[in-house]
Amino acid sequence: MDLIEKIRNVPDFPKPGIGFKDITTLLADGKALRQAVQMMLNLYENQKIDSIIGIESRGFIFAGILAYELGIGMIPVRKPGKLPYKTIAAHYDLEYGTDSLEIHADAVKRNDRVLIVDDLLATGGTVEATASLVEQLGGIVVGCCFLIELDFLNARKRLTRYSINSLIHFDV
Amino acid sequence: MDLIEKIRNVPDFPKPGIGFKDITTLLADGKALRQAVQMMLNLYENQKIDSIIGIESRGFIFAGILAYELGIGMIPVRKPGKLPYKTIAAHYDLEYGTDSLEIHADAVKRNDRVLIVDDLLATGGTVEATASLVEQLGGIVVGCCFLIELDFLNARKRLTRYSINSLIHFDV
Repeated sequence: MDLIEKIRNVPDFPKPGIGFKDITTLLADGKALRQAVQMMLNLYENQKIDSIIGIESRGFIFAGILAYELGIGMIPVRKPGKLPYKTIAAHYDLEYGTDSLEIHADAVKRNDRVLIVDDLLATGGTVEATASLVEQLGGIVVGCCFLIELDFLNARKRLTRYSINSLIHFDV
Repeated sequence: MDLIEKIRNVPDFPKPGIGFKDITTLLADGKALRQAVQMMLNLYENQKIDSIIGIESRGFIFAGILAYELGIGMIPVRKPGKLPYKTIAAHYDLEYGTDSLEIHADAVKRNDRVLIVDDLLATGGTVEATASLVEQLGGIVVGCCFLIELDFLNARKRLTRYSINSLIHFDV
């Protein structure tokens, strides 16, 4: 199955001129969901990984499944104020202004090998911030894994320090 | 393993006097995560289920894993404005005012048998709204499954029409 056919393009969302890549059509198809997860697992089968980070909120879906399959822990990275315990934060740029992401300060231990997972790689700002959170806590970013990558936004140019894998690529 | 020991109580979050049940300590433990999912699967092993609904955002974690394990689709129910395609909405009461949840209008088909999953059952408002979304689309709520239930909030009183299962109970 070609997974790209399971992604729905929604024109003019969230604003005019933007074509939104809707993954709910892939999630709704049990076979497509299984295939996507198996493809992600195959990418890392020879790697030692201690835990999987999921970036709020769609990243939670794939991060949870991968952690479950590998028998390791899943760590949520969330928007400010959502995590209840002691956190650290990293900021990233938006089109206008900045935003930030948080992780529990005890979520990653020194030298833990962590895989970062999200549904979509766009400009890479949230991923860069998440990698910074891992490194602030002394962890090692084994890689960053995405269901979809928007190649035309060139996120890899800012993420050269990391190993990036995406299952589905869009060039427009 | 007694899963209740994997839940961290965070006092005074999100506001003074509230003891927050932090599931990140359970998620971070690969064995506890696997056990929780296996216990959920055991609860429904004789049921015909067509898809699993996860309620934003922590509900996505367990809903995704259950859907993956059962080889069926996962459907996100989200806060307003997050889902890109045509949606329907259901409202629920907050302490002050109301909020709403949305589902894609094509996510549930007539007579689909749907399991609703979230991390925590508190007053039951979001679950009731989610069940209403399923029923508006002609689906059947097979059950509602939670990692944690706050028994003292008596959600079951308002959810009498549904089969409720929770793995961990708190009575204070």
